[in-house]
Amino acid sequence: MSENKPGKVTLEKLVSLCQRRGFIFPSSDIYGGLSGCWDYGPVGVELKRNIKETWWRNNVRERDDIVGLETSILMNSKVWETSGHIKSFSDPLVDCKSCHQRWKADDLTENKCPACGGELTEERMFNTMFKTFVGPVEEEAAVVYLRPETAQGMFVNFANILNTSRKRLPFGIAQQGKSFRNEITTGNFIFRSREFEQMEIEFFVKQGTDEKWFEYWVNERLNWYIKLGVKKDHLRLEQHPKEKLAHYARACTDVAYQFPHGWAELEGIANRTDYDLKVHSAASGKSMEYFEDETKEHFIPYIIEPSAGVDRAMLAIMCDAYDEEPDKDEIRVVFHFHPDIAPIKVAILPLSRKENLATFAKDVYTTLRPCFTTQYDDSQSIGRRYRRQDELGTPYCVTLDFQSLEDNMVTIRERDSMNQIRVPIATLKSILLAKLAGEDFLVLPEGGKKVEKEEK
Amino acid sequence: MSENKPGKVTLEKLVSLCQRRGFIFPSSDIYGGLSGCWDYGPVGVELKRNIKETWWRNNVRERDDIVGLETSILMNSKVWETSGHIKSFSDPLVDCKSCHQRWKADDLTENKCPACGGELTEERMFNTMFKTFVGPVEEEAAVVYLRPETAQGMFVNFANILNTSRKRLPFGIAQQGKSFRNEITTGNFIFRSREFEQMEIEFFVKQGTDEKWFEYWVNERLNWYIKLGVKKDHLRLEQHPKEKLAHYARACTDVAYQFPHGWAELEGIANRTDYDLKVHSAASGKSMEYFEDETKEHFIPYIIEPSAGVDRAMLAIMCDAYDEEPDKDEIRVVFHFHPDIAPIKVAILPLSRKENLATFAKDVYTTLRPCFTTQYDDSQSIGRRYRRQDELGTPYCVTLDFQSLEDNMVTIRERDSMNQIRVPIATLKSILLAKLAGEDFLVLPEGGKKVEKEEK
Repeated sequence: MSENKPGKVTLEKLVSLCQRRGFIFPSSDIYGGLSGCWDYGPVGVELKRNIKETWWRNNVRERDDIVGLETSILMNSKVWETSGHIKSFSDPLVDCKSCHQRWKADDLTENKCPACGGELTEERMFNTMFKTFVGPVEEEAAVVYLRPETAQGMFVNFANILNTSRKRLPFGIAQQGKSFRNEITTGNFIFRSREFEQMEIEFFVKQGTDEKWFEYWVNERLNWYIKLGVKKDHLRLEQHPKEKLAHYARACTDVAYQFPHGWAELEGIANRTDYDLKVHSAASGKSMEYFEDETKEHFIPYIIEPSAGVDRAMLAIMCDAYDEEPDKDEIRVVFHFHPDIAPIKVAILPLSRKENLATFAKDVYTTLRPCFTTQYDDSQSIGRRYRRQDELGTPYCVTLDFQSLEDNMVTIRERDSMNQIRVPIATLKSILLAKLAGEDFLVLPEGGKKVEKEEK
Repeated sequence: MSENKPGKVTLEKLVSLCQRRGFIFPSSDIYGGLSGCWDYGPVGVELKRNIKETWWRNNVRERDDIVGLETSILMNSKVWETSGHIKSFSDPLVDCKSCHQRWKADDLTENKCPACGGELTEERMFNTMFKTFVGPVEEEAAVVYLRPETAQGMFVNFANILNTSRKRLPFGIAQQGKSFRNEITTGNFIFRSREFEQMEIEFFVKQGTDEKWFEYWVNERLNWYIKLGVKKDHLRLEQHPKEKLAHYARACTDVAYQFPHGWAELEGIANRTDYDLKVHSAASGKSMEYFEDETKEHFIPYIIEPSAGVDRAMLAIMCDAYDEEPDKDEIRVVFHFHPDIAPIKVAILPLSRKENLATFAKDVYTTLRPCFTTQYDDSQSIGRRYRRQDELGTPYCVTLDFQSLEDNMVTIRERDSMNQIRVPIATLKSILLAKLAGEDFLVLPEGGKKVEKEEK
């Protein structure tokens, strides 16, 4: 970006800001990284946890009809035989006969090597599941895979959950957890990684009600992103054409997001029919039938699956929260995170490190910290500290000056508007709680006043 | 257990209760499981999340001197070369020359096959890290390992975090996440698994202050378990004798717990000296020195490491929470979970499904659910529902009867004492909030009264 002109978000800018402020680092950074793997730093881990926690609260704890589950990453290989992953979860690859480089066939536009123009071999299928070996000997019997999706863990637990939770249709199972795919090409920051985290729901319904529930979940999931601050006009629904659906799927719609590298899938909602439960029931010999009390019918439920990626959600949220704003002679870079997911909610900034002010500021800090994630920062000029908190996406800064020691008032500075109000310290906690909960304070609290300028 | 005599907790009883109530299932259950892997069901996942959340809150969000981190499970193999895991993270194995069974040498008391008495081969070292391959070809260059500990992810990020968080010594990095060990023998339920979850802190200090901080963390961690409801006399500190320490460690103390299968490590606190940062700095060529402003000294910090297992913590908590109590002619089985970690905080139990009572009960449910995890249960007799909630470890049941429709009073039934009080519905939420926060209600709220008997 040019020094003094605000520009658009790019992946390069995000990567750089994320590394500089402790959101995201390359995995094994000191050893040159590991392609397709990322580490979430002190600020990033809080953002990621907040996104996951919000999804869990919205979908599990606030609903009657969904229960949680956490299945293991290593599973019995019969799961992947039955699901079809061992046979068909593959990418076609070709080698160059001259330079011996390997390419993903789907990525090639011409039938020659993009590097040297050489002749290519026939396509060879390459399974993108990571393979490992359980037990002391590397033999075929002991091969297990790192799961490429969390979904199968929910399908194979359907009967266990039906029996123990006593839920009745329609109901769902929700899971968050890591999945692994040995992608040939990774890239676009955390968009496509080899190790990534999913948040998936398998929602079980009676055939005939599946289309209605499919529509319900498409809308529900689209709105979830909007509520978290993703811009409406950066989102669109992409319906998969019938001829491109997986053989078992009756419908599939993506919630797509306009990433800096183009429109791409943020979440997929699929109508998986009764395929998954049927094949697992047949392969395991265990019944996956549901008995409907009202009709005395036995049947295998249909499944509607909203499948989201935590890392992609985080990337989309960061892209839309990112902003460069002209601010006098400078550019202000700011993350406009929704307060619910902002890594730090409030920063306490004493104007000086002098002992009496520091003691006072620490007191305020200690009072607020049990209520929300609070950071204490007394280094450098107040202007630089505001800029730092803007880049961390902290919604509110509380500034304490020597006047505060006399009048017991502090300044609240709002990240988005940069407006400042001066409020009595006794009201600070309740004002911040209300503001973070999304309540406006158009009317100043008793004794409060607006402050005109931001100090530098 | 005998039908009418309360007994002690055993792993068998826990396994059975956990499966029956949806705490823990064997992984890939319908396919006969996968040894050393477990799934956490709807209730278990809430218990596990609450334990992790409490640890994170206590160690990261409520402290100034620890920041969070989440590193990837797959890391550059140089990490494990440098740490010594590739060379030395191994178990000695022997084979039987007659029946060809394989044994862990450390488990054998005599030098013959425990199965057939046959002669054994020489010991052979077996690395317990899971190996897999990144990229399209299975060749040596692309070998990566599933991390056997989360610790190394924090060591290799030391400089990244120092630079971005601007923390000064002493400070720590905290991480939660899955680790994997290809154990020869797994067992004792979730005590020793191949896939397990850790919560680890690496606390960086200046040499000379390391012994003081080591003592601090031993006490801190011991008390954490006690605060979560683990019984003091089931915990003890086990100091590793000097001659048994890892070559780099200066001290190591286990917080051991008296599991049903015997005393065993719940958490280990180690003084790892400056070994880890030194070797990674040497191998990567990246400086891991810290500059102390006051003394103008450059040095590599010492590390104190409190390393806990989430699954072991959960097992210990379940063991101590489990109780069988005589109750007239029956045995009451109950989990006395600390309210902070109980999977469900409150159950709403209408005495009948009749519409007017159901509407009323659902209203109460809707009011309480945003405040704490609440379950609605209207099936079977009230006595059976109390027993079910006891087995889930729900601290409070709220019972609504037809009288409630007239006097706007409901009954709160306490899990541990089975005492019941009848309170005005307007006070219900604040009473439950206070009770769950650990405040006693020796004085009944205005209009409240004690109820003598538990209804069946």
